[in-house]
Amino acid sequence: MASGWFYLTCLVLGSLGSMSVLFTAYWMQYWRGGFAWDGSTHMFNWHPVLMVTGMVVLYGAASLVYRLPQSWVGPKLPWKFLHAGLHLMAFIFTVVGLVAVFEFHSHENIANLYSLHSWLGITTVILFACQWVLGFAVFLLPWASLWLRSLLKPIHVFFGASILTLSVASVISGINEKLIFSLKDPGKPYSSLPPEAVFANSTGLLVLAFGLLVLYILLASSWKRPEPGSLTDRQPLLHDGE
Amino acid sequence: MASGWFYLTCLVLGSLGSMSVLFTAYWMQYWRGGFAWDGSTHMFNWHPVLMVTGMVVLYGAASLVYRLPQSWVGPKLPWKFLHAGLHLMAFIFTVVGLVAVFEFHSHENIANLYSLHSWLGITTVILFACQWVLGFAVFLLPWASLWLRSLLKPIHVFFGASILTLSVASVISGINEKLIFSLKDPGKPYSSLPPEAVFANSTGLLVLAFGLLVLYILLASSWKRPEPGSLTDRQPLLHDGE
Repeated sequence: MASGWFYLTCLVLGSLGSMSVLFTAYWMQYWRGGFAWDGSTHMFNWHPVLMVTGMVVLYGAASLVYRLPQSWVGPKLPWKFLHAGLHLMAFIFTVVGLVAVFEFHSHENIANLYSLHSWLGITTVILFACQWVLGFAVFLLPWASLWLRSLLKPIHVFFGASILTLSVASVISGINEKLIFSLKDPGKPYSSLPPEAVFANSTGLLVLAFGLLVLYILLASSWKRPEPGSLTDRQPLLHDGE
Repeated sequence: MASGWFYLTCLVLGSLGSMSVLFTAYWMQYWRGGFAWDGSTHMFNWHPVLMVTGMVVLYGAASLVYRLPQSWVGPKLPWKFLHAGLHLMAFIFTVVGLVAVFEFHSHENIANLYSLHSWLGITTVILFACQWVLGFAVFLLPWASLWLRSLLKPIHVFFGASILTLSVASVISGINEKLIFSLKDPGKPYSSLPPEAVFANSTGLLVLAFGLLVLYILLASSWKRPEPGSLTDRQPLLHDGE
């Protein structure tokens, strides 16, 4: 029953995540002139799509690996590889998304890293990089002691959820900022809520709903991997230390 | 030892919260012309100060009431009153903060509720109102059954943390938006990072740090009120149902 609810929630989550990415891409394609890799505003258009895909949707999916009931039995190592691999993919999308905006700024002589959106975004990406490297070194490489792993695990989990929260806040401030910069036509300004504004605002709320649902699944105690001490007979004991 | 760390963390939290409020007020006083209640931009200036004070700092403090070790022993009812009372105070600050921005818009013929910041902010305040009324009806009034209370408690806790997350995202997008609207002097635009921009961006990061620390304290399991079943001999059993 609990696992039925879990899969239903994952279905909702998958829909929200896909819609977040598709809506962002549609916004950029339909209202902002589509995509190119040439330093123009069409290159910038990759930035929102890649950041929503990488820092929110793939990151969120990667963070939920240990909530899959299949991951609770048998060796944990393959699931650790999946967790680290998906996060690495999220990070690659993120880096390409950053290249898109920095190249656009450089091509158009726009300053980098001045808005609060950019300060928050770059802080989030740096934290993500630190989190990935530390997670890889401590939880995937075999050398860390059990003591160090159990010391760092709650910190890893907390920063994992925090980084997702910061990503969502970055996306919200980024969509808001992009609409303020773009919707300047005095005939239909942002304040008159033209269709693009309604669509992009709604996309922001979709991303938010996705992020909150990931956090809910992460925190709901009945969907957490049981600690080794609380395993039932059906489940083999795990010995890999966390 | 655990409680020593708890109070040290609360000290850091108190400093971050006070600095968030003071920095926001200083930004409005020093760079944006100070405060008035006359429909002008000086009336708007109350909006950031009251929202940061109400929706983030007071809200955060109110949400931590049950983390005080003093609240773990003796009757729970006074602590429930404190929790609900502080949240009510946070809500009053929030409503006055909304009046400040709506009156300013009305006086200056600016449209209401068009930006993603405003959509997110108003969603957050509506969720806060629902959460308070439902919390009051179920957990403070004596009529709800134990079954209903234990059903709703995890939902109340999750929405409590979510509303704080949404508040912080609203503040970030609000500061960003205010700076884009205000720093338009071609001699020192936002993109040239004048002192006001650095100060207000830093204030945004302070508010974010405060919010994350509240969430950390809320989630750290060793600082949670022990469930009645896990009480030690030292602590009298509680019978009020949650």
